[in-house]
Amino acid sequence: MVAQKLRVGIAGLGRMGKRHAINFHELTARANVVAASTPDYNERQWAAENLQGVQIFQDYDEMLEKADLEAVVIASVTAVHAEQALKAIKRGLHVLCEKPLSIDAEVAQSVVSAYEQSLKTYPQQKVMCAFSRRFDASYREAHERVNKGEFGSPVLFRSQTADLYDSSGFFVEYAKTSGGIFVDCSIHDIDLMLWFLGENRNIKSLQAVGVCAVHPGLEATNDRDNAIATVEFEGGKMAALYCSRMMAAGQEDTSEIICEKGSVRVNMQVRKNHVEIHDSQGARRELPQHYYERFREAFITEAYEFTACCLDNTPPPISLRSSVKAVSIGQALQRSLITGEKIYFDGRTIKN
Amino acid sequence: MVAQKLRVGIAGLGRMGKRHAINFHELTARANVVAASTPDYNERQWAAENLQGVQIFQDYDEMLEKADLEAVVIASVTAVHAEQALKAIKRGLHVLCEKPLSIDAEVAQSVVSAYEQSLKTYPQQKVMCAFSRRFDASYREAHERVNKGEFGSPVLFRSQTADLYDSSGFFVEYAKTSGGIFVDCSIHDIDLMLWFLGENRNIKSLQAVGVCAVHPGLEATNDRDNAIATVEFEGGKMAALYCSRMMAAGQEDTSEIICEKGSVRVNMQVRKNHVEIHDSQGARRELPQHYYERFREAFITEAYEFTACCLDNTPPPISLRSSVKAVSIGQALQRSLITGEKIYFDGRTIKN
Amino acid sequence: MVAQKLRVGIAGLGRMGKRHAINFHELTARANVVAASTPDYNERQWAAENLQGVQIFQDYDEMLEKADLEAVVIASVTAVHAEQALKAIKRGLHVLCEKPLSIDAEVAQSVVSAYEQSLKTYPQQKVMCAFSRRFDASYREAHERVNKGEFGSPVLFRSQTADLYDSSGFFVEYAKTSGGIFVDCSIHDIDLMLWFLGENRNIKSLQAVGVCAVHPGLEATNDRDNAIATVEFEGGKMAALYCSRMMAAGQEDTSEIICEKGSVRVNMQVRKNHVEIHDSQGARRELPQHYYERFREAFITEAYEFTACCLDNTPPPISLRSSVKAVSIGQALQRSLITGEKIYFDGRTIKN
Amino acid sequence: MVAQKLRVGIAGLGRMGKRHAINFHELTARANVVAASTPDYNERQWAAENLQGVQIFQDYDEMLEKADLEAVVIASVTAVHAEQALKAIKRGLHVLCEKPLSIDAEVAQSVVSAYEQSLKTYPQQKVMCAFSRRFDASYREAHERVNKGEFGSPVLFRSQTADLYDSSGFFVEYAKTSGGIFVDCSIHDIDLMLWFLGENRNIKSLQAVGVCAVHPGLEATNDRDNAIATVEFEGGKMAALYCSRMMAAGQEDTSEIICEKGSVRVNMQVRKNHVEIHDSQGARRELPQHYYERFREAFITEAYEFTACCLDNTPPPISLRSSVKAVSIGQALQRSLITGEKIYFDGRTIKN
Repeated sequence: MVAQKLRVGIAGLGRMGKRHAINFHELTARANVVAASTPDYNERQWAAENLQGVQIFQDYDEMLEKADLEAVVIASVTAVHAEQALKAIKRGLHVLCEKPLSIDAEVAQSVVSAYEQSLKTYPQQKVMCAFSRRFDASYREAHERVNKGEFGSPVLFRSQTADLYDSSGFFVEYAKTSGGIFVDCSIHDIDLMLWFLGENRNIKSLQAVGVCAVHPGLEATNDRDNAIATVEFEGGKMAALYCSRMMAAGQEDTSEIICEKGSVRVNMQVRKNHVEIHDSQGARRELPQHYYERFREAFITEAYEFTACCLDNTPPPISLRSSVKAVSIGQALQRSLITGEKIYFDGRTIKN
Repeated sequence: MVAQKLRVGIAGLGRMGKRHAINFHELTARANVVAASTPDYNERQWAAENLQGVQIFQDYDEMLEKADLEAVVIASVTAVHAEQALKAIKRGLHVLCEKPLSIDAEVAQSVVSAYEQSLKTYPQQKVMCAFSRRFDASYREAHERVNKGEFGSPVLFRSQTADLYDSSGFFVEYAKTSGGIFVDCSIHDIDLMLWFLGENRNIKSLQAVGVCAVHPGLEATNDRDNAIATVEFEGGKMAALYCSRMMAAGQEDTSEIICEKGSVRVNMQVRKNHVEIHDSQGARRELPQHYYERFREAFITEAYEFTACCLDNTPPPISLRSSVKAVSIGQALQRSLITGEKIYFDGRTIKN
Repeated sequence: MVAQKLRVGIAGLGRMGKRHAINFHELTARANVVAASTPDYNERQWAAENLQGVQIFQDYDEMLEKADLEAVVIASVTAVHAEQALKAIKRGLHVLCEKPLSIDAEVAQSVVSAYEQSLKTYPQQKVMCAFSRRFDASYREAHERVNKGEFGSPVLFRSQTADLYDSSGFFVEYAKTSGGIFVDCSIHDIDLMLWFLGENRNIKSLQAVGVCAVHPGLEATNDRDNAIATVEFEGGKMAALYCSRMMAAGQEDTSEIICEKGSVRVNMQVRKNHVEIHDSQGARRELPQHYYERFREAFITEAYEFTACCLDNTPPPISLRSSVKAVSIGQALQRSLITGEKIYFDGRTIKN
Repeated sequence: MVAQKLRVGIAGLGRMGKRHAINFHELTARANVVAASTPDYNERQWAAENLQGVQIFQDYDEMLEKADLEAVVIASVTAVHAEQALKAIKRGLHVLCEKPLSIDAEVAQSVVSAYEQSLKTYPQQKVMCAFSRRFDASYREAHERVNKGEFGSPVLFRSQTADLYDSSGFFVEYAKTSGGIFVDCSIHDIDLMLWFLGENRNIKSLQAVGVCAVHPGLEATNDRDNAIATVEFEGGKMAALYCSRMMAAGQEDTSEIICEKGSVRVNMQVRKNHVEIHDSQGARRELPQHYYERFREAFITEAYEFTACCLDNTPPPISLRSSVKAVSIGQALQRSLITGEKIYFDGRTIKN
């Protein structure tokens, strides 16, 4: 008997779309990429050369219509994430959607609602937001050990997403549609914060401050290039976040979960690989230059596990509700960052 | 010709007083401890056995009266720091006072005022608060390199003082007079923050949240055992602080100065010494258990340099004004911690 | 046009055979595993369940006869490596053979001779010994940087292969056929030594000493569980090796290339992943427990690149001659280890 | 009652002599430097300015004759160590002699014999060779933990002394009188090897190879700038040593004690202090540039403990016999290095 392979369509073949396409097509034994869609001519050319045996569409709707799909991976521009997800959900397709579902929490919530409605018709349907760090081996070990109580109850979650400085003006351009540094950059830390401190835990207050240190152009879109935040949860837990677009050495994505009887640190000694140099500069190592260099393995695992949950009808590894909550928190932090106000959630709490 | 040695009196021979006494007496070639005072009988016994040739007094005033002193080191309980400092200042003595000058910024300010008045009579008089970390070789290298602009302008100062968990109830007892975790514990980070970001820089806002995770008894004195804070300065600079009384592995006092073109980290890989063990627990190293294990060398350097500035009539290594400003900030953070309010300083800024 | 996929047969489905089968079958897009052979019933059962669409043979010769192969991966017991390689070579098949080709240098040399003869008939044939560490990203970066002269000429190569202690008696049993610790364990370090110091460089002398510290049963087969060696090359270069079967914390495979103007270190801070724990044991991290945990990625890259060199007719990444030279050196070190004699190679040098 | 202070004379005020003088004079509370001798005019000038209240002599014999000494610290050129030690021993003075006692094992042995004879007359006399690393806090913790069996029995001792590259020609000049790299540089590792593996343990064989990689001038004095050695002990223990005069980053003095159930590493992550930089060069730290930067604290502890053993009549921290054995081993390694021969000690063993 020949085992079934999940028939996957890829929406969008930009930087992340290409990676998802390759990961599902070549490195996920239980999946077959059967179709891909992108409005971009060059991306379709790339697909013709690199995705053997895959149907290429210019239009997403046409792909949904004509290709024989069981699942779609949405890696298009953020602005269409929700819309494309909704269309796929309506057809009963499994969906893996790149983060964020939307830069607007209400829009994101509409996807959750549609999915929950759709489950009545397609009870085996899986819809998941692609928070890749949850598939990273180190974060997983950390979570497993914290979760089983090895260090007592967690008290403080500290985390940062810090990108390599880019002198090209990319970050300024990108900020026009990104939703701001807390929605775009910190969304991973926020997702991890919920994972480690409790996805159902209510937030009491949050607060952020930030600056434009090296990208003054960000002021125009009410964004910042460095920001710090504190988040206060019910039940005596809290979080401290940092996001930056200014790192000189590379991508510095680190987290620390400080518990009552010990702490777990992920990637606090950032390093690209196992090489260390001793020379007239001292003892030194290099850092990953981009998030993909750090998290490549996690993306492959994500593809593998998303495929498995679809084929085996097991629960998706990440709750869609939690992903929407992350967007809500990101938006609130961004608002605090710009207004300078601390936001309290008594009564009108950010709840699960 | 025989070089002059500074004639030093030690006020208070508790844990820190003993260390100061030994450091000045045995390890500071240009100083002689000639007298010490303490109301505690056991401490006087210790002095009789360990401080050879030193006059021992029960009463501080009597020591000032009778001993032939040029300088006093105040290491008594915090409650009398300011009072003892004022008395010594009035007599024209040099003063090295343990931190904090007072847990109350106004009282601390009164010492500065008295000193500034006294300088008219005793223009060579030195009065300094003992912020030992400024004498640590690693912090000094960090400051020197940041200060000369090696990494561009500093943007974010992150720092923490995190004590080993103590199950004896010490922290709860101590909190009754300590002024709170931000005045007692974080005062070092605050002092360093001013040193790195600018002692004359105005603060725009600050905010803190915290919990009683392992020492519930702290609630009674309006204190917390874990707290995080953000501080916003004029000129596009900011700080994130963390203080804790709960560390499982040891004293974790770390700082990070993130600048436009690079960052400097002090003690981020906390370690007691150069030993590393590989065994069935993995690869591991031990941490210092107390601040003195980490900063012993800094205290010796402090004694050496305070002595030198008195004998050579050079400026004291630390500005007394800055030390008082640190107390003001610590008090404001503690207030924010308890009220939950973000504090803004427009108009009524915390200024130099 | 559909791109051609390399048709691969796997010989042997033990621990390594299974991994090669999965890597070629699922993770190497340009290869198809079409057949596998093993005399072991359970291994054939595993194949039936895990290698979808693959013909399973009990007999290697039958697989060569009946399956439509372009390449074989030899992962059977060491004793038949050479024999199976020779048969495949004769048929003009590409061969990737697990290390060592043989525990006897003469036998290994016979494979090289057969291959060089065969190239006259099959000029595009590729035969390569599977020294996986040459495909590790860290070793590759080290080699590239040393090779381009970034640190001046290499002077000393230090390297070790150190296995986790195994209390099951495995190492004693294994020693009966392994060729000894230098042929089995250090063969990787020897291969790397040749790669870094020069595959064509003659050896002047070598010498080894060792002990049976924790596996006394190894004495019976003239083997040791800990051994150190020095190797002296012509041209002012040298190497220091260490091999062990006794590590308490995990697999510690480290290398250091000390050059005139700097050194490159690979994996000197052994770590399993990015997790670090701070608890009452201090600050600690875990180590990989086995070589595959450390080198999994390298094995996948090896499969990928072996496939590519076969399909694209590019030179194999590793010279077969160098692999045979490694066996010669391993045998000589083992002889020195047992006799206690230093071996000189004047005239009868171990040459390329 | 005033406690007695040890009256110390310093012989030689070169680089190390100055340090010993300051350490005993200013940082050792129980010692007084009362005299110093040096044939060098500039050094006497230095003493006049820096050693307040100390009698300065041009001639060592005159110092012994005229100064009221209880102990001498010999820090003069190696060539006169033994002679000066013998003269002091004869007078019943305590002696702390810089390493090595002599570059010739027989001469060194004559000092031991004289001391053992002298003890009959002066049973409280202390004579000790200044192996500073035994006073380093990290080496001490390592030794204590190994010694109490925390990791089972030690099997392999690996250690290196590796100096910063010096382009001035110093090492070539120095080699004329140093006794060679194993007697000068590795003598510390050899001393530690005996300390960790057993000072009374017999050696079965040893062997060394080396090169002149960057200081070709060393050939003329039969010395090398990089050398590796293996030492085989009775009882199933062994050692691997490395010495170098070529390090690009700084002083890299590291040791590793590999035991049956774990290993202890000292300074394997060489670092100057607690500072780490992240910038466009990656993540980096600086190394100590000279042995004194690494071991300054150990020298102070040495002064303190030598003083204590003299005043309190306790056993000297280091056995003089062991120090002479270290010289014997160093000489044998240097011989092997030059002749290329492995040296066996059956019958004519290097014994305690």
